[in-house]
Amino acid sequence: MEGEITNEKILARLSRIEGQVRGVARMLDDGRYCIDVIEQITAARRALEKVALLIVQRHMNHCVKNAMAEGRGEELTEELVGSLDKFLR
Amino acid sequence: MEGEITNEKILARLSRIEGQVRGVARMLDDGRYCIDVIEQITAARRALEKVALLIVQRHMNHCVKNAMAEGRGEELTEELVGSLDKFLR
Amino acid sequence: MEGEITNEKILARLSRIEGQVRGVARMLDDGRYCIDVIEQITAARRALEKVALLIVQRHMNHCVKNAMAEGRGEELTEELVGSLDKFLR
Amino acid sequence: MEGEITNEKILARLSRIEGQVRGVARMLDDGRYCIDVIEQITAARRALEKVALLIVQRHMNHCVKNAMAEGRGEELTEELVGSLDKFLR
Repeated sequence: MEGEITNEKILARLSRIEGQVRGVARMLDDGRYCIDVIEQITAARRALEKVALLIVQRHMNHCVKNAMAEGRGEELTEELVGSLDKFLR
Repeated sequence: MEGEITNEKILARLSRIEGQVRGVARMLDDGRYCIDVIEQITAARRALEKVALLIVQRHMNHCVKNAMAEGRGEELTEELVGSLDKFLR
Repeated sequence: MEGEITNEKILARLSRIEGQVRGVARMLDDGRYCIDVIEQITAARRALEKVALLIVQRHMNHCVKNAMAEGRGEELTEELVGSLDKFLR
Repeated sequence: MEGEITNEKILARLSRIEGQVRGVARMLDDGRYCIDVIEQITAARRALEKVALLIVQRHMNHCVKNAMAEGRGEELTEELVGSLDKFLR
């Protein structure tokens, strides 16, 4: 997760994920073996997690950092941890 | 997870997930708040998990069931559990 | 996940997990670095997942297999998939 | 996740998790139904996740906050996100 996390980079990942989801649909249409379909879903899910983590990282480097400088750090930290909690569930 | 798990039902879910992923991209374009974006990713990830579970269920009701009747049940069970293991990681 | 999945094997894993959880407590007592503590929790969580998967595998090779032979396979499959769904959440 | 996150609070949670893991072992000894055992493992896993999130929250409110004030914020953020990544896998 090196370098500046630009919208362009994240949008490129999302576009690939869209393709992966379409790929799952195509595999179903083609009657591919269930385990292979699950593997493709696993890849898309993992790719979504990476995008979420990139956004978490960017959020911390900007919004949380600014909030901490202004004394509202604990508030945004609690919000972010609550969001991670929902993500895990 | 009631009724027959048809390709149609799963494809409809996948199409909604594609829309959710496009929605994440649109939110980024619109400069929406990071936590809201993560929430949308959480929804897409959860929806992908549901699709994976539907395919697991269908796999058990057909492929695993047939394999068990033919004495190859343990083999397919091990394959499925290995696939779940990768899914969790 | 080779060989017969005996209670002994699973109990040995659970005993190691108990030790890992106690290890997390000890790390907190010792004031260890947060990231190292999270890594130890990650290991314990992963080990718990492995135990869950072993029990899923055993369940399929016995309970689900018997149920399928008796025409109650779909019922137990739905129950198991519902259980995996809760596990993922 | 309200109030100061003290070691005492986290240690109390860890002690309950140890009890949950021992409970899983006892359920196996008692020959309890697989699905019930998996449910207990789910509870222990979820409780471990909550502890991990409490430590993440504390880490952000202290270590990350201090690092941000000293200009080393991005470094610790990257470390934390890498740790979350491993946690998800």
